[in-house]
Amino acid sequence: MNSFGRIFRVEILGESHGPLVGAVIDGCPPGVPLAPADLEGDLARRRAGSGGTTARREADVPEILSGVYGGFTTGAPILVAVRNADTRSADYERFREVPRPGHADFSAGRKYSGYADLRGSGHFSGRLTVGLVAAGAVAKKLLPELGFATRVVEAGGRADVEAAVAEAAAAGDSLGALVELRVSGVPAGLGEPWFDALESLAAHAFFSVPGVRGVEFGDGFRAARLRGSEHNDPFVDAEGRTSRNGSGGVNGGISNGNALVARVAMKPASSIALPQETFDFGTGAMGTLEIGGRHDACIALRGAVALEGALALVLADLTLLARASAPFEPQAAKGNRT
Amino acid sequence: MNSFGRIFRVEILGESHGPLVGAVIDGCPPGVPLAPADLEGDLARRRAGSGGTTARREADVPEILSGVYGGFTTGAPILVAVRNADTRSADYERFREVPRPGHADFSAGRKYSGYADLRGSGHFSGRLTVGLVAAGAVAKKLLPELGFATRVVEAGGRADVEAAVAEAAAAGDSLGALVELRVSGVPAGLGEPWFDALESLAAHAFFSVPGVRGVEFGDGFRAARLRGSEHNDPFVDAEGRTSRNGSGGVNGGISNGNALVARVAMKPASSIALPQETFDFGTGAMGTLEIGGRHDACIALRGAVALEGALALVLADLTLLARASAPFEPQAAKGNRT
Amino acid sequence: MNSFGRIFRVEILGESHGPLVGAVIDGCPPGVPLAPADLEGDLARRRAGSGGTTARREADVPEILSGVYGGFTTGAPILVAVRNADTRSADYERFREVPRPGHADFSAGRKYSGYADLRGSGHFSGRLTVGLVAAGAVAKKLLPELGFATRVVEAGGRADVEAAVAEAAAAGDSLGALVELRVSGVPAGLGEPWFDALESLAAHAFFSVPGVRGVEFGDGFRAARLRGSEHNDPFVDAEGRTSRNGSGGVNGGISNGNALVARVAMKPASSIALPQETFDFGTGAMGTLEIGGRHDACIALRGAVALEGALALVLADLTLLARASAPFEPQAAKGNRT
Amino acid sequence: MNSFGRIFRVEILGESHGPLVGAVIDGCPPGVPLAPADLEGDLARRRAGSGGTTARREADVPEILSGVYGGFTTGAPILVAVRNADTRSADYERFREVPRPGHADFSAGRKYSGYADLRGSGHFSGRLTVGLVAAGAVAKKLLPELGFATRVVEAGGRADVEAAVAEAAAAGDSLGALVELRVSGVPAGLGEPWFDALESLAAHAFFSVPGVRGVEFGDGFRAARLRGSEHNDPFVDAEGRTSRNGSGGVNGGISNGNALVARVAMKPASSIALPQETFDFGTGAMGTLEIGGRHDACIALRGAVALEGALALVLADLTLLARASAPFEPQAAKGNRT
Repeated sequence: MNSFGRIFRVEILGESHGPLVGAVIDGCPPGVPLAPADLEGDLARRRAGSGGTTARREADVPEILSGVYGGFTTGAPILVAVRNADTRSADYERFREVPRPGHADFSAGRKYSGYADLRGSGHFSGRLTVGLVAAGAVAKKLLPELGFATRVVEAGGRADVEAAVAEAAAAGDSLGALVELRVSGVPAGLGEPWFDALESLAAHAFFSVPGVRGVEFGDGFRAARLRGSEHNDPFVDAEGRTSRNGSGGVNGGISNGNALVARVAMKPASSIALPQETFDFGTGAMGTLEIGGRHDACIALRGAVALEGALALVLADLTLLARASAPFEPQAAKGNRT
Repeated sequence: MNSFGRIFRVEILGESHGPLVGAVIDGCPPGVPLAPADLEGDLARRRAGSGGTTARREADVPEILSGVYGGFTTGAPILVAVRNADTRSADYERFREVPRPGHADFSAGRKYSGYADLRGSGHFSGRLTVGLVAAGAVAKKLLPELGFATRVVEAGGRADVEAAVAEAAAAGDSLGALVELRVSGVPAGLGEPWFDALESLAAHAFFSVPGVRGVEFGDGFRAARLRGSEHNDPFVDAEGRTSRNGSGGVNGGISNGNALVARVAMKPASSIALPQETFDFGTGAMGTLEIGGRHDACIALRGAVALEGALALVLADLTLLARASAPFEPQAAKGNRT
Repeated sequence: MNSFGRIFRVEILGESHGPLVGAVIDGCPPGVPLAPADLEGDLARRRAGSGGTTARREADVPEILSGVYGGFTTGAPILVAVRNADTRSADYERFREVPRPGHADFSAGRKYSGYADLRGSGHFSGRLTVGLVAAGAVAKKLLPELGFATRVVEAGGRADVEAAVAEAAAAGDSLGALVELRVSGVPAGLGEPWFDALESLAAHAFFSVPGVRGVEFGDGFRAARLRGSEHNDPFVDAEGRTSRNGSGGVNGGISNGNALVARVAMKPASSIALPQETFDFGTGAMGTLEIGGRHDACIALRGAVALEGALALVLADLTLLARASAPFEPQAAKGNRT
Repeated sequence: MNSFGRIFRVEILGESHGPLVGAVIDGCPPGVPLAPADLEGDLARRRAGSGGTTARREADVPEILSGVYGGFTTGAPILVAVRNADTRSADYERFREVPRPGHADFSAGRKYSGYADLRGSGHFSGRLTVGLVAAGAVAKKLLPELGFATRVVEAGGRADVEAAVAEAAAAGDSLGALVELRVSGVPAGLGEPWFDALESLAAHAFFSVPGVRGVEFGDGFRAARLRGSEHNDPFVDAEGRTSRNGSGGVNGGISNGNALVARVAMKPASSIALPQETFDFGTGAMGTLEIGGRHDACIALRGAVALEGALALVLADLTLLARASAPFEPQAAKGNRT
């Protein structure tokens, strides 16, 4: 239930206050050059996203514990792990009685009947995006010709993201934000009609990142307000470029060779320093909850690279699938017959 | 590549101008009362959505060709088919040279190297939502306690949907629209953290419906503009109700017992009666394309019930999965040992 | 639960006395030449297997109802159906009370709580191998360089299969048999270590054919009685040929370029003309069961081509997977960027 | 490609001379009591199987690195790892030129183009059955009412297994063997017709264990030599017991409540102390290969518990699936609505 992908298949694992967080990647072809250093850039972007707050300090040193030999992937499953160090498992049991608004405490309590590890939000923690980011970095190694450009374009409705976040942090509050992802170099032909539409898979991956509330491609929600004659986005050259890439690079679920463009809405962090009125299931009445500890003022700052990684997983998988489903040519079946 | 779901698994099949369209449903438990009449209501809603335009007239009589015996599902795969009648395969070959803007002609051409059936858009046709709607109707039979309420809340940015569509149709144009889906009665505990988050699966399903450009849950894109203290949505009673259901019924990827609320943006139909300037791959220059035949003025009108069906597939699958992943009790393993 | 394969994915559907039997094939690449005539050869082999008995007479005319256009696969799901004609649903309800030994009447009754369609064994009928054979015939179209040689090498322990079957049939009895499958031209490199070993997948497919009781590869059960020095099967040339192909063409779960060799044990048909003493769940005591109607004297005669088809499914899927998991070369990712 | 199961899903990972071997288990319900000690019994059985040879000495201390909290599974993925200690990566590169008969050196070389980790056979090593055995031990925790009885019934064709193995070991040779698995307490109703037949899944799992050459259920290959009237195995009581359990506990792919009985043929270890003549791809001529180091005289001795674990994976998965696919009762859908 925690795995994703048909060929390039990823599973996220670990708990916030357990021994480690990480990912297992199955189906990566052999021969991909891969070392821990390849993962460090994106993991550093994830850490940097904690700016403006007293964040958990983790070195986040990735270890590759299987599937790589002599600097290349072998074709066997790749286990990437980051050990947890800075854990403080103080008072999480309390959240079984007073579930934090916006968190999984209540819904997970119903699902797992009290067996969930709540320390630092356990398996639900944003800390687990370490595994997603690491897996995404592996995926990008399969996609050397793609260009990923991801940025937080607005926070709290303002384009001056840094200032807006600093203000919210100073007020003990948090901010929602809008993330834009652009991928250039995507070849035409990735994705399927119906259930494995490129947008279906990308949205599936995006919504797996905690705090995502909305996903759109190309014209997105704006398309709902347009006439067809306005929305019209004709092809303009023999390369298949369209006039304004209003579909965000996808037609009929299949990439059309234009840049892939998505926007993702992330909510403000639910944990804030300010006190919150919420139901206390212990007393059976409303009460005041104060959530101590370290909070992110804008989870989109860390989330952006996780979204990019999630999208890279989809593109890597579809790239491998495209090899499998290429039009039939009898001689292609020959392979390496000895 | 055309199937979806882990237990309740659906595959969409057929072509617009082939012998039939339909769906295969695997993993439906035995004992569900099911007859063609159960599918007719939603199929009629889909047909009615063609209002305002000279639409293709199909009786859309569903046949259940396997998996049902004596009025109940047997546990074997269910094949639902609707035969195609009113097909006019005039001049579709032309779209290989002059791909229609916004359609899959170009991207499918790249993917399938010219082998795709383009008649009436073939496997990409909106006609195939018949299979999705039929499968969704089967899914709802598994969910008798849920209440689905789906409506087009805006077309072209206007709340007076009917009038807006009529005006666009009269002008030979089309309109985008916004669809809201609400499901009441969803129990807490459906969905998973990370990749099988309820939002991930629902968005996956929604984006499989042709023409969807954006999906949001609860506060959606608005959440990106809020502070945490504004966005705060505390629990208010022992049932787990929250103050304003800002998360749309999902926390941490898992349903929280509040109504599930999603909004979906659908684009205006790409095929319009008005002429369009677009690239002619035959002449290597821009040209004028006129798309004759029958057009929907607002694909959201038919799409709404397809979105509802898509969501029902997800909820049926998660309902069955929830049985499988219920907390362990040794005696539960006993089953029906003889 | 009725589907198999990761890329080339097949689902068997229908009931013995329902409107049709058939298969849906998803993930077949576009561009494969395919017509009903391509399926008829193997369907005829299946029918011929009924020799020696008063078998059900069906024309078994296959229809391809989706996924093929202009004589080639399109990349969309392929629905192959054969309509049922010669059905006589006499007295099957009786088998709910007196389940036939060796059949699924009892176990299906426990699983489906009485909802199963028992007419002609319903979804459990050997009639459904029509879908398996048809899907296998499609799979072989992807494998034009492979040579399949399948034969019943023994029936009732005798090499003179025809005579042995005729004798058993004359006695109102049935015979078990041994089927050998050899596939030449299999390239080295198909299959995976561990769970997707070539033998794992092939055995999975073989045991899905009704009546299979054992599967072995290469030396098979004989290997259990040998010393390593006897069993030793060294490579003998630069092509990778081994001295006696004792491993049946697979090392470490991966094909080694030698012929794939498997043997499959099929039981005698459970339905025989002779009366059988068995438990009557209605009376709560032992009783005598006579099974009227048409019986196969040796199900292996029809089963052989179903086993061959099942193996073809595996080889087609692994051939497509091998494209996806080929060693990484950055330029290979280029695809058809416009 | 290394994962197995639909709900209870297992992935095997690691390399013989890498940092660790182990397994990831997804889909285990919450609330299962689980500690490393639960895995030690079966891991000890696996080690004990090395008797009679100078085997690799590993403590094989299992660590549970995720998915367990407070002594119970949480519902999150479970990572079980055993660190490798006693590794001696001497001269494995040589096997790229002179692939060992019966090993994966040649076929893996073709598949992975030289990127495979060959040290100690890398990901192909029998060492990885540690992960399979550990996962099997977790699976058994879900099946407290089943009784597993697994034994090596013959080695080299002799019932006196210990003496036969000792003789072969003394001669620098190895022995094939026959393993019988019996599981009592299996409820009726597990498995599916066609592709997810209980035998299909069990054989799939068995053949994933290195060295397996044949699998049979119940009468097995003997059934191929019988007449139906001899093979006849009627029901004899209201519990569904059959006269001699000739089908090994499965009818129509579905368990019938009788004991599950399978026999598995394992080949003699391919690595023996005796010199072997085989092709040298470096010189292009036959040469003599001596394989130094530690060899198992009878891999079935260790393999037996791996086979048992593999079967437990299947039964755990089917047990959870049976919950999901139980006959429909509207009230069962209620769940834990708040």
